Amino acid sequence: MQPEKYRRNPTPNLADRQWPNNQLEKAPIWVSVDLRDGNQALANPMTVDQKLKLWHELVDIGFKTIEIGFPSASQPEFDFTRRLIEENRIPDDVTVQVLVQAREHLIERTYEALEGVKKAVIHVYNTTSVVQRENVFEKSKDEIKAMAVQGAKWVQEYAQKASIAHPESEWVFQYSPESFSQTETDYAVEVCKAVMDVWQPTVDNKCILNLPATVESNSPNRFADQVEYFIRNLPNREAAIISIHTHNDRGCAVAAAELSLLAGADRIEGTLLGNGERTGNMDIVTLAMNLYSEGIDPELDFTSPKKWIEVVEEVTQITTHPRHPWVGDVVYTAYSGSHQDAIRKCLLKQKNGQPWNVAYLPIDPKDIGRDYEAIIRVNSQSGKAGSAFVLAQEYGLNLPKWVQLDFAPVAQKLAEEKGGVVSHIDLFEAFKAHYALGENNDQLENYKVDRNGESETVQLEISGEIWAGQGQGTLSALCDAYQKKTGASIDVIDYSEHAMHQNAMPDGKDAQAIAYVYLDTPQGKTVGIAMAQDTVSAMILAALSGLQR
Amino acid sequence: MQPEKYRRNPTPNLADRQWPNNQLEKAPIWVSVDLRDGNQALANPMTVDQKLKLWHELVDIGFKTIEIGFPSASQPEFDFTRRLIEENRIPDDVTVQVLVQAREHLIERTYEALEGVKKAVIHVYNTTSVVQRENVFEKSKDEIKAMAVQGAKWVQEYAQKASIAHPESEWVFQYSPESFSQTETDYAVEVCKAVMDVWQPTVDNKCILNLPATVESNSPNRFADQVEYFIRNLPNREAAIISIHTHNDRGCAVAAAELSLLAGADRIEGTLLGNGERTGNMDIVTLAMNLYSEGIDPELDFTSPKKWIEVVEEVTQITTHPRHPWVGDVVYTAYSGSHQDAIRKCLLKQKNGQPWNVAYLPIDPKDIGRDYEAIIRVNSQSGKAGSAFVLAQEYGLNLPKWVQLDFAPVAQKLAEEKGGVVSHIDLFEAFKAHYALGENNDQLENYKVDRNGESETVQLEISGEIWAGQGQGTLSALCDAYQKKTGASIDVIDYSEHAMHQNAMPDGKDAQAIAYVYLDTPQGKTVGIAMAQDTVSAMILAALSGLQR
Repeated sequence: MQPEKYRRNPTPNLADRQWPNNQLEKAPIWVSVDLRDGNQALANPMTVDQKLKLWHELVDIGFKTIEIGFPSASQPEFDFTRRLIEENRIPDDVTVQVLVQAREHLIERTYEALEGVKKAVIHVYNTTSVVQRENVFEKSKDEIKAMAVQGAKWVQEYAQKASIAHPESEWVFQYSPESFSQTETDYAVEVCKAVMDVWQPTVDNKCILNLPATVESNSPNRFADQVEYFIRNLPNREAAIISIHTHNDRGCAVAAAELSLLAGADRIEGTLLGNGERTGNMDIVTLAMNLYSEGIDPELDFTSPKKWIEVVEEVTQITTHPRHPWVGDVVYTAYSGSHQDAIRKCLLKQKNGQPWNVAYLPIDPKDIGRDYEAIIRVNSQSGKAGSAFVLAQEYGLNLPKWVQLDFAPVAQKLAEEKGGVVSHIDLFEAFKAHYALGENNDQLENYKVDRNGESETVQLEISGEIWAGQGQGTLSALCDAYQKKTGASIDVIDYSEHAMHQNAMPDGKDAQAIAYVYLDTPQGKTVGIAMAQDTVSAMILAALSGLQR
Repeated sequence: MQPEKYRRNPTPNLADRQWPNNQLEKAPIWVSVDLRDGNQALANPMTVDQKLKLWHELVDIGFKTIEIGFPSASQPEFDFTRRLIEENRIPDDVTVQVLVQAREHLIERTYEALEGVKKAVIHVYNTTSVVQRENVFEKSKDEIKAMAVQGAKWVQEYAQKASIAHPESEWVFQYSPESFSQTETDYAVEVCKAVMDVWQPTVDNKCILNLPATVESNSPNRFADQVEYFIRNLPNREAAIISIHTHNDRGCAVAAAELSLLAGADRIEGTLLGNGERTGNMDIVTLAMNLYSEGIDPELDFTSPKKWIEVVEEVTQITTHPRHPWVGDVVYTAYSGSHQDAIRKCLLKQKNGQPWNVAYLPIDPKDIGRDYEAIIRVNSQSGKAGSAFVLAQEYGLNLPKWVQLDFAPVAQKLAEEKGGVVSHIDLFEAFKAHYALGENNDQLENYKVDRNGESETVQLEISGEIWAGQGQGTLSALCDAYQKKTGASIDVIDYSEHAMHQNAMPDGKDAQAIAYVYLDTPQGKTVGIAMAQDTVSAMILAALSGLQR
């Protein structure tokens, strides 16, 4: 390690700081930047359809300001903005926000994207940090400030132009000194003051000044010092909404935001579950739930996290960490006997209408759609991922997603019957029973698979009857044989097969292979699973099992 | 949401707090509790062998105190302690620490487990929080204090007894008022003072007082107030090492620990990557790297995280979040063009021996074994998980672990050749080339698989030659045919097969199936992969491909 390479990032000396004496009493103005900062941090950025899907979740949760992208940066970002406006997807009480650099052609294009919008925040930024001024832009403090002032002027001018054709559009201006946390705080005040001099905001018509920790580079108390210093030194502070935008490079993005609110900030930008550049943005779920757990109305609705977590996971392709504060899979779980015992005793004494008072459970899990049942689990996990995990861990089964979904209600019912504690043995017994594993292996007496060039013939002897069919492969030939036998046309949607290494065969023999087949039949979709000593037998038996279910 | 159910956890009013004026200048005493708190939070606790593996990683990183478990609680915990001692695995400069409740038979058993140890910390605790006193123990403040005092006495008495047979053993006493953060701070002082009155520590023979946020229930500044208040009001403070043990329920465990150090704490308990109860323990990696990034020697060696991350992931069965501070997969990655550009410009100007000064990169990734190459990536991820992710995402391939491992060096070489930017197209081309996908499909002209009762015969026509064999399944019959042909005995270690949905076949035809076969041959282990229109063909071709490589 070479600590001598690094030096501490300077922050103001604020011996008379007030923020540690303050207490939060209400939720801040929340701004979701999932569709912008979150999106720009993805290896595979969201499609327009994915953005729409996430947009509706954000609206449902109750965000009243949503940064939707950087419409001047790419066609999909532009198109997404147009779709929101043209398809009337923006509720009256929701304001869209768009990001743009302090460059004229980009600002012009941004207003084109917003044509006909009811209300929008135009969020213009340039970077003010020491390292960027010196190493990237090679500009003086005055030159960087001039860029900000010029950007502010363009934002205002193009708003006036846009208002000629659309006088009904309402524009709110926001400025970010990017990398505020690595900028001399006095200089950040100077730049923001210059921007306010252009915009001339008033108490009744405020602008927004957004202070980003673009890279988190101080402990959260020192970031709070920066924010308090900024606010105390900003002239005409009442005409500005002070907004905070933290990142998580030191694992303290939530703390920095929370302490900034104590320091007087009004507004918090962040994302669901903290998706965002590098280590991520401030996680709004965690901060909102922190306030909630102290009795403050978060003004966001997290009563049903399952739905939006699925959407976030789909669009980010990032799985939620099982220990994610408030919503992770295991955060209401106690494995230790003494913890379980304490929880049980407290729950027995917890009265309706009384303040929540349960050891090891900072909130009632029911408030966010979790169950007491899920609190105490031994060698098990909840939901479809949970049973898949246990079956993989204990029995070496790699269930395809469609098997996980098919089996989930069975596992759920079992968990309910067992009061939340499901052993892997019970789970596997339920799995075997549900798919009749091993019960019908005897029905397939003999078979022949004969490949000749491109086509294959399959002949099966099933419970004494001969089935014969042709196709491009074994499964398609089997489908053909089934159609010849019954007249019903079936299709293979998906299949999967793998070797088994454990003595997991129901009749005690070593199963060498397990096959999963997903079929489309005239009666609907069906899943068939079989274990057998041989790969081809398993595949055929799985298909037959699916047809019999 | 029902915020009225909750109330704020009270903390001392400390208007003259000093901690926000302080700066950290050196690393604290670090204590790993991975093997105890980390282990007790796992659905599947570690085996003794897994504990040994993790123990050696912790020693290699440089921890000088390691809490190894709760030896009186279970036989594996006892056995692990004995193995460390009897097999002489504890270096002279490392102290083991063990946890025990304030109960006599458990304390007695703990000293049995430690017989012959050179030096150990006996960590005794009882819970002091309001909720536990009232709802779990139903005891008064005085009764709970008496439990602590009695525990302290037993710890001392059994140490004296143990010293008769082993006068060379050195004992250090540690007491935790469990749930300190939910305890009235004055009362925590009172209990700790009573414990110190029993132990009579001195400046030269200190005891340890450990202050846990067993459940994180305040913002980190208010936890720091609790710690400063505790330290300022503790009589004979110089005779105690003040230790901090935070959890992450509000996502602020690192912040709370960092601010506690400002408040005067000397010692930090935590785990690698924050594994631990519910939302986890304080992550020592993040806090140590935070100090490092400010120029403070962390006194732990994180120069090669790959090795211990693999061990942590193996024993916890939890994958590291890609955005985990300092060590996550994508935390040194910039996808946005303006960020990439700024990084490039700064790197060009970065001089050897000068302080690190690069936008968006808080430290030099090389310091912890990461590469500049990995900084800027488009539609790709690093390492074996990365290429597996891209192949799964873009081509629907589910590579088994042994294929991922086999292909990793190929992907690595490609990334190096391409300067770190690997497109999915290049990656897939390399995959196809490496496994000769589709190149030899023509060699398998016809085949027959004939199953009769328990045994199967396979007859293949390969490049005009007939191969025939018998076995329990298609693959074993194929192995038999190969042995008859060549005399060489081969075994199938594993195989996997799944349907294909994309037009990914190299020759432009739709491949319906891809098979992966892992073979043990007289020449060593080999991986064979094939795509074909038919499941059985793919399986046979994969095996042949493995044999030809």
